[in-house]
Amino acid sequence: MQRKYLMASHGHLASGMQSSINILAGKGGELKVIDAYVTDEDYTPQITAFLEDLQDDEQGVIFTDFYGGSVNQKVAAEVVKSGKTNVFVLANANLPLVLGVMLSPEEVLTADNLASMTAEAAPQLVQLAPAKQETAEEELDDFF
Amino acid sequence: MQRKYLMASHGHLASGMQSSINILAGKGGELKVIDAYVTDEDYTPQITAFLEDLQDDEQGVIFTDFYGGSVNQKVAAEVVKSGKTNVFVLANANLPLVLGVMLSPEEVLTADNLASMTAEAAPQLVQLAPAKQETAEEELDDFF
Repeated sequence: MQRKYLMASHGHLASGMQSSINILAGKGGELKVIDAYVTDEDYTPQITAFLEDLQDDEQGVIFTDFYGGSVNQKVAAEVVKSGKTNVFVLANANLPLVLGVMLSPEEVLTADNLASMTAEAAPQLVQLAPAKQETAEEELDDFF
Repeated sequence: MQRKYLMASHGHLASGMQSSINILAGKGGELKVIDAYVTDEDYTPQITAFLEDLQDDEQGVIFTDFYGGSVNQKVAAEVVKSGKTNVFVLANANLPLVLGVMLSPEEVLTADNLASMTAEAAPQLVQLAPAKQETAEEELDDFF
């Protein structure tokens, strides 16, 4: 099933995401973006244009920057108002989530397979192995 | 304890994040950014400059775009090489995480309180109440 993607954010986060997706997967052109509040212009028409452009035999995914934030609320309200049920809204978007969904081999996106993708994209604290400890472990490995 | 922040990403995601943080909290100037792979220039010196600038009585937080990605690996390697233990690296960064950490009232960041912040920032599927269903619920509320 054909998919269409939009990311909407406060500021240039959305276009920044597009740039990253382009560098990592050459697919920046497939992600439409809304950088809201950069100018005073109302961004609602950009959301409705995306929704109107979405065909019944397609699936739409809208990534937003912040759950409960004004952009997220506006997007959710417009999707509900459109009456379309073939659109998913994913909040707290980050690069692994957007990339994971865009590259997902799933024929049809569902709440279930999207839940797996959001779980895999969870932010995390990176465990840094101290240089000294690594050396000690290497020596131990060499010994045994 | 004074904190310093850096975000490093493939492409313009990091500067996009800075723009969003500025719009939402007026703190874009407190987040240093590295937009890697936009030019051929090696971005390692920008990481080491951030680490060298960090004093022993400060804490540093480096946000990266993608766990296991090249930017994340480079950052982690440089932190380990620096020998500094007052730096946290957070991968799969998104807006609620960066904002949450920057606005956190915690006097000292720890692995524990950062774990709470990463959990709260988890990407999620937004449940969209269909317009019809909402109306029905409202009518029910009015009735009782």
